Amino acid sequence: MKLHENLQALGSSATAYRYDNPDPSLLESFPSPFAIGELNPVGATGTIHIECPEFTCLCPLTGQPDFARIVIDYQPDKLCVESKSLKLYLGSFRMFGEFHEAGVNRICNDLVKLLAPVSLTVRGEFTPRGGIPFWPTAEYRKP
Amino acid sequence: MKLHENLQALGSSATAYRYDNPDPSLLESFPSPFAIGELNPVGATGTIHIECPEFTCLCPLTGQPDFARIVIDYQPDKLCVESKSLKLYLGSFRMFGEFHEAGVNRICNDLVKLLAPVSLTVRGEFTPRGGIPFWPTAEYRKP
Amino acid sequence: MKLHENLQALGSSATAYRYDNPDPSLLESFPSPFAIGELNPVGATGTIHIECPEFTCLCPLTGQPDFARIVIDYQPDKLCVESKSLKLYLGSFRMFGEFHEAGVNRICNDLVKLLAPVSLTVRGEFTPRGGIPFWPTAEYRKP
Amino acid sequence: MKLHENLQALGSSATAYRYDNPDPSLLESFPSPFAIGELNPVGATGTIHIECPEFTCLCPLTGQPDFARIVIDYQPDKLCVESKSLKLYLGSFRMFGEFHEAGVNRICNDLVKLLAPVSLTVRGEFTPRGGIPFWPTAEYRKP
Amino acid sequence: MKLHENLQALGSSATAYRYDNPDPSLLESFPSPFAIGELNPVGATGTIHIECPEFTCLCPLTGQPDFARIVIDYQPDKLCVESKSLKLYLGSFRMFGEFHEAGVNRICNDLVKLLAPVSLTVRGEFTPRGGIPFWPTAEYRKP
Amino acid sequence: MKLHENLQALGSSATAYRYDNPDPSLLESFPSPFAIGELNPVGATGTIHIECPEFTCLCPLTGQPDFARIVIDYQPDKLCVESKSLKLYLGSFRMFGEFHEAGVNRICNDLVKLLAPVSLTVRGEFTPRGGIPFWPTAEYRKP
Amino acid sequence: MKLHENLQALGSSATAYRYDNPDPSLLESFPSPFAIGELNPVGATGTIHIECPEFTCLCPLTGQPDFARIVIDYQPDKLCVESKSLKLYLGSFRMFGEFHEAGVNRICNDLVKLLAPVSLTVRGEFTPRGGIPFWPTAEYRKP
Amino acid sequence: MKLHENLQALGSSATAYRYDNPDPSLLESFPSPFAIGELNPVGATGTIHIECPEFTCLCPLTGQPDFARIVIDYQPDKLCVESKSLKLYLGSFRMFGEFHEAGVNRICNDLVKLLAPVSLTVRGEFTPRGGIPFWPTAEYRKP
Amino acid sequence: MKLHENLQALGSSATAYRYDNPDPSLLESFPSPFAIGELNPVGATGTIHIECPEFTCLCPLTGQPDFARIVIDYQPDKLCVESKSLKLYLGSFRMFGEFHEAGVNRICNDLVKLLAPVSLTVRGEFTPRGGIPFWPTAEYRKP
Amino acid sequence: MKLHENLQALGSSATAYRYDNPDPSLLESFPSPFAIGELNPVGATGTIHIECPEFTCLCPLTGQPDFARIVIDYQPDKLCVESKSLKLYLGSFRMFGEFHEAGVNRICNDLVKLLAPVSLTVRGEFTPRGGIPFWPTAEYRKP
Ligand SMILES: [Ca+2]
Ligand SMILES: [Ca+2]
Ligand SMILES: [Ca+2]
Ligand SMILES: [Ca+2]
Ligand SMILES: [Ca+2]
Ligand SMILES: [Ca+2]
Ligand SMILES: [Ca+2]
Ligand SMILES: [Ca+2]
Ligand SMILES: [Ca+2]
Ligand SMILES: [Ca+2]
Ligand SMILES: [Ca+2]
Ligand SMILES: [Ca+2]
Ligand SMILES: [Ca+2]
Ligand SMILES: [Ca+2]
Ligand SMILES: [Ca+2]
Ligand SMILES: [Ca+2]
Repeated sequence: MKLHENLQALGSSATAYRYDNPDPSLLESFPSPFAIGELNPVGATGTIHIECPEFTCLCPLTGQPDFARIVIDYQPDKLCVESKSLKLYLGSFRMFGEFHEAGVNRICNDLVKLLAPVSLTVRGEFTPRGGIPFWPTAEYRKP
Repeated sequence: MKLHENLQALGSSATAYRYDNPDPSLLESFPSPFAIGELNPVGATGTIHIECPEFTCLCPLTGQPDFARIVIDYQPDKLCVESKSLKLYLGSFRMFGEFHEAGVNRICNDLVKLLAPVSLTVRGEFTPRGGIPFWPTAEYRKP
Repeated sequence: MKLHENLQALGSSATAYRYDNPDPSLLESFPSPFAIGELNPVGATGTIHIECPEFTCLCPLTGQPDFARIVIDYQPDKLCVESKSLKLYLGSFRMFGEFHEAGVNRICNDLVKLLAPVSLTVRGEFTPRGGIPFWPTAEYRKP
Repeated sequence: MKLHENLQALGSSATAYRYDNPDPSLLESFPSPFAIGELNPVGATGTIHIECPEFTCLCPLTGQPDFARIVIDYQPDKLCVESKSLKLYLGSFRMFGEFHEAGVNRICNDLVKLLAPVSLTVRGEFTPRGGIPFWPTAEYRKP
Repeated sequence: MKLHENLQALGSSATAYRYDNPDPSLLESFPSPFAIGELNPVGATGTIHIECPEFTCLCPLTGQPDFARIVIDYQPDKLCVESKSLKLYLGSFRMFGEFHEAGVNRICNDLVKLLAPVSLTVRGEFTPRGGIPFWPTAEYRKP
Repeated sequence: MKLHENLQALGSSATAYRYDNPDPSLLESFPSPFAIGELNPVGATGTIHIECPEFTCLCPLTGQPDFARIVIDYQPDKLCVESKSLKLYLGSFRMFGEFHEAGVNRICNDLVKLLAPVSLTVRGEFTPRGGIPFWPTAEYRKP
Repeated sequence: MKLHENLQALGSSATAYRYDNPDPSLLESFPSPFAIGELNPVGATGTIHIECPEFTCLCPLTGQPDFARIVIDYQPDKLCVESKSLKLYLGSFRMFGEFHEAGVNRICNDLVKLLAPVSLTVRGEFTPRGGIPFWPTAEYRKP
Repeated sequence: MKLHENLQALGSSATAYRYDNPDPSLLESFPSPFAIGELNPVGATGTIHIECPEFTCLCPLTGQPDFARIVIDYQPDKLCVESKSLKLYLGSFRMFGEFHEAGVNRICNDLVKLLAPVSLTVRGEFTPRGGIPFWPTAEYRKP
Repeated sequence: MKLHENLQALGSSATAYRYDNPDPSLLESFPSPFAIGELNPVGATGTIHIECPEFTCLCPLTGQPDFARIVIDYQPDKLCVESKSLKLYLGSFRMFGEFHEAGVNRICNDLVKLLAPVSLTVRGEFTPRGGIPFWPTAEYRKP
Repeated sequence: MKLHENLQALGSSATAYRYDNPDPSLLESFPSPFAIGELNPVGATGTIHIECPEFTCLCPLTGQPDFARIVIDYQPDKLCVESKSLKLYLGSFRMFGEFHEAGVNRICNDLVKLLAPVSLTVRGEFTPRGGIPFWPTAEYRKP
C-alpha cells in the first residue's frame, strides 16, 4: 500500500482554486505512518507542526483585508492532513469575512472533523489593526 | 445572530477619541464563538493573545510621558473584547498620570469586570526611566 | 490652506474596497509640505520610505495566490501620495493575475503618473515559490 | 567657561511639560566642543546621531494617536542641541495633529533655525496605519 | 491616599549620588496597589520584572571595573520598590569591590529586608572576564 | 500578446526532474515587461533579485554533498528568466561534482547566454566544510 | 580500551557515499562514556543534541527535491551514535522519495534499533512547499 | 574572613598556562557566600550560570581541532569555583584529543569532585563537523 | 626587535587603576607591523577597529552615571595603541563629569596625539537619558 | 585538465596537523576557473569571500589563548586558494604567539605570495580581552 494512493490535489495540474467560502471538502488526509506497525515497530509517538504564513481573509464589518500566520500543531491518531489540500483549504478564506476568533475556531473544528486526532491546536497570528495584533488560539484534546 | 451585531466603535466614522481619563465605558464585548455550540461542536478551548505596543500615559509625580507595550492574554468565558474599543480604552490613558504598577492593575480590573473571563493577564512592558525598565504584571484567575 | 482639504478616503466611513483589478483611480495625492516655502523656509529636501507588507495577488498561469512586501521610496516634487488611498490601490490587486516583474512595473508607472516625482522606486519582495523568492525592482528618475 | 553655563532644563526640578503645540522655544543649545580650539587642537570633525523612540502626535483628520521613532543626524557648526530640551520640544507634539511629512519637515526647520548647522537630517519612522508604515525624511545642507 | 506620598528621590532636584559603598538606606518603598482592595477588587496577583543594564562595581582583588545587567523579579506583599531609589542604590556599588556571587546575594538580601515580598529573585548577568561570563542568581521565597 | 505564452515548465504537471548534469536547456525566458513601451511608458529601469536557498551538488574529489544559497541579481535587457525553469536548472546540479568557484562561474555563464542581460551577478553562499564557508561570486557586465 | 576502537567511517579516506536508499547499515555506534563507571564515577546522566541542517530527499509523488534540518535528541543507555556514520546515513536519503512524516518516523526507528536508548526524538524541520513548512516529530521512550 | 583569601590564580602575574592535558588540579574554589549566614540572613538559594565560548581541543582520531562553547550551571553547597582557575582548567584541553561526549563527561566529573555541589550541569556546544553539530550534556544531582 | 619590548601595562601584575580624571599618560603605543618592511613586504594597508562596550563616566551637571560603547577606527602610520593601556585610559573617566560630545572629542584628541595616525574616528554610543540616546562622533584625517 | 589535479590535502587520509608555527608551505592553489576562457566565455569577474570562525593562537606576552574569526576577501588573478590547505595553514598558528595586528598582516602577506591576486583583504575579528575586541584588517591591491 502507498500512503498517498488516494490523494488528488498533490501533483495534479488541474488544481481549481476556490476563494469565496471556507470549504472543508478541499481537505484530504492520508494514513499516519506512525499508526502503521510495520513502519513504526518501536512505537514512536508522532506530532506535526505546521506554519501557514500566507493566510488572508476579510473583515466581516469593514470588508478590509486581514492577514495572519496560521500555526497548527497536532498529534495524529489514524490520519494526517495532506499539505497541498491544506493550502487549498486555507486559500478558500480569501474573500470571506469573519472575526479573528471565529476563523481560528472554524479551522480547528474542520481539521478535528477530518482527522479525529489525539489533540490539535490552531493559532492565528494576525497582523495589527489599529496598531494592535490579536492572536486567538483554539485547542482541542480528544476526551 | 451575527457575533458583531451590537458593536459600535468598529467601522464607525464618528469615533470620538478621549484622552483625559481611563474610561472603561469605552470597552465593548461580543459573544465568544468558542462558547457557541453550533460554531464549536468539538468543544475546543479558546484563548486570545493581544499586544498593544503604542500605550502612553504620564508620570503622576513629574508629569513626563511614559511609554509601554501592553500585553494581554485571556481565556474567555462567554465574552470577547472587541479590538477597536480596546484601542480607544487604552488611548484614554494618554493624559493621565499613574504609577506603572497601578496602571497595569487598573487595566486588568477593568477587563475582568467587562468579560468575566476564566483567566486574564496584563503585562506592561514600560520603556526605561533612569536606564531601568519596570514591567509589572497582573494575573487574574476565576475563583 | 489645509494640506488635506481634498482627500476623500482618509477618515471616511463609506470606504468601498475593490479587489478585481488594479485601479490607479483609487490613488489620491496632497501638496508636499517640502514644496511649500512658508512650511520649509530652510529648503530641506524631503523623501518618503513606505513598506506594504500585506500585498497579495494571483499567479496569471496557475491562479494560486502570491504574497509580497511592496517597498516604495520616492522624492516628491509637488505632490505626496496619501496613505489610505495607497492601501486601497494596492488592495485592488487581490484577485488579479500578473507576473511579479509586471506587477512591480505597473505600480511604479501608476505612482509616477500620479505624482510626477523627482524619483521613485518600487521593490516587490515576493515570498518563495518552489523554494525561491523573486524580488523585482522598478526605478524611475525624472529625466 | 563651562559648556553648559546657560542651560536651564537639564537638572532642573521645575520642568513644566507642554503638550498642546510644537514649541521651538523649548529648544536650548550649548557651544560645540568641536568648534573650540583649545578642546579640539587636532581639528577633528564632530557629528551627532540621536534617536527618539518615544515620539507621539495626533492624526490631523481622525484625531487618532500616531507613534514614531524620530532619528536626527547633524554636523554642528558653532552650536549643539541640549538633550533634555530636545526631549521637551518633541514632547510638545503630544496633543498636536499633523501629517507625517509635515511634522518631520517642521522638526528639521526648527532645529536648523536653532543651530545653523553644517548639515542636519530628520527621519520619522512612524508605526503602521492600515498595515503600512510611512517614513518621511527631511535633509538640510548649508548652502 | 496617594501611593507616592512618602517618596523622596523621585522628582527631586537635590539628588545626591553616593558611589563609595552599597547603601540599603537609599532604597524607598510605596504601598503595592495590588494589595489595596479598592484598587484591585477582582484580587489579581501582581508581579514586577526589572532590568538594570547599567550596573558596575569593582573586582575586590584586582580593582578592575566589572559590569553587569541586574535582573530582578518579585511578587510584592504589601510594598513595592520605587524606581529612582533603586537606581540610586545600585549606583552606590560603583566604587565598591566584591565577588559576583556576593554582590548578587547582597542585593537580594537588601531588597527582601525592604519589601518582605512573597518571593524575589536577583540575577547578575556580568560581562566576560578572561572570555568567560559568570551569572549568579539569588532566589528568595517567603517560608 | 501574453508575457508567458511560450513557457512550458510553469503550471505543467509533466515536469521531469533531471539530476545528473547541469543542463542549461532547462532554462526558459519571457519578454521583460520593463522593455515593452506600452507596459512601461515612464521608462523605469528594472532589476531582479533572486535567492535559491536549496542548492546542492557534490564535491568533485570526495563525492560528499555540498549545500549553498545561490543569490542572483540582474538587470534584464529584453528577457527575464522564468522561475520554475530556474528551479529545474539549479536542481540538475544535484548529482554533479564541481568546485564551488567553477559552479558559480558556470551558472553565471549559462544565464548570460540565455538572457543577454545588461548585468548579472551570481553568488554561492556555500555551507562550511572543515568549519570554513567559501562564498564565490561571478559578476558580468555587458561590455 | 579506546571508545572508538571499532569505528570505520571516521578518519577513513575510502568513504563511499551511497545516495539511492536510506541505509541503516551505514550507522555505527561506540560505547557511551556516561555508562562507563571509571569515566563517570559521580554518575552524571548524559544526553546528546544533534542538528543536521543539510538533509535532502525527494517528494514521492512529484520527484521534486525536499530539504530539511533534522534535529535529534537522545539519552543513551550503553551506546552513542558516531558522527560521521550519521552523516553518511542521512546522506543516503538523497535520491529517495518519501513523505515528510514517514521519513522522520524511519530515522527514529533506525536509530532506536541501533542504540536501544533510554529515549530518542527526531524532528524534521522541512522547508516550505506551497508556502507552508511541515515539521513532523517522532518521539520514543523506552517502555 | 575574606572569601578569596586562599585564591592563587586570580590577580597573579606568574600564571603558567598548561595545554597538554586536562588538569583538574588547576581548579580552585572559594566559600559560597550563599552558605554563610551572616551574608545571607534571608536564606536565599544561589545558582551560577557560566559560559565559556572559547573552548578548543583535538579530535582523538584525526587530530584536527574541535571548538565548543562550554555552558555550566550549578547550585553550590559550600563552595564556588573561581573564574580564572576555571579558565586555566578549560585551557588545559587545548592539545588533548577526546570525543565530545567524553570531554563533557570529564568536565562534569572534575567539577563535582571539586565542589560537591547540590547539582551541576555541563553542556558542550561543539561547532559542526561534516556539517553536523553534536552537543552533549552531563547532568549531576546530589543523591 | 620585539614589537612589544617597551610595553608596561600588558602582563603586569602591579596595575594601578586610576578613576578620578581622564589621563592620556596611561596610553602606550608599539611599532605598527604594517609599517615594518620585513614584516609587510607586499605593502598591505592596515586598519584597526576597536569596541569598548564598558565605558562609564558621570554627567557634569547632575552627577548621575553615563554609560557608552566607545568605537574606535584608525589607520596607523608608525604606531599602534596597546590594548591594555587603552583599557586603563578609558577606565580613568569613571568618576569624571563631561558632556557626551566633549568626552568623545577628548578621546579622539588624546589618541591622535599619541599615534599621529593617517586617520582616526571615535564614536560614543551612549545609552538613553530621558529615553533618547545621543551618539557623537569625532573624525580626524591627517592634513 | 582537471582544476584539482595537483591538490594534495583535500580528500587525503594522511593529513598531518602542525600546530607549532605558521607554515605558508601548507597552502595550496589551483587554477582559477574565472581565468580559463573555455569555462568563462562571457568574461565574468570572480571574487571569493571566506570566513574562518575557528582561528586560535597565543598572546606573545602572557601566553594566554586568543580566538578570532578570520575573514578573507580576494579577487583572484590566475590562482585560487584550496580550502583544506587553508584550514591546515590557519591551524598552524595554534601554539604560536603574536600580536593581533602582526598575525593579520602575516596571513595577508602569505596569501598574496601564494596567489598574486588582483586584490586581497584579511580581517581578524578577535574576541575581547579586558572587555575590548581588537579587529585589525590588512588590505592589498596589486599595484
Ligand atoms: Ca505531509
Ligand atoms: Ca495598523
Ligand atoms: Ca477580535
Ligand atoms: Ca532612560
Ligand atoms: Ca502621509
Ligand atoms: Ca548632549
Ligand atoms: Ca514603579
Ligand atoms: Ca575577555
Ligand atoms: Ca518571474
Ligand atoms: Ca561524537
Ligand atoms: Ca515554497
Ligand atoms: Ca566568581
Ligand atoms: Ca563543517
Ligand atoms: Ca593589539
Ligand atoms: Ca574552493
Ligand atoms: Ca573580558
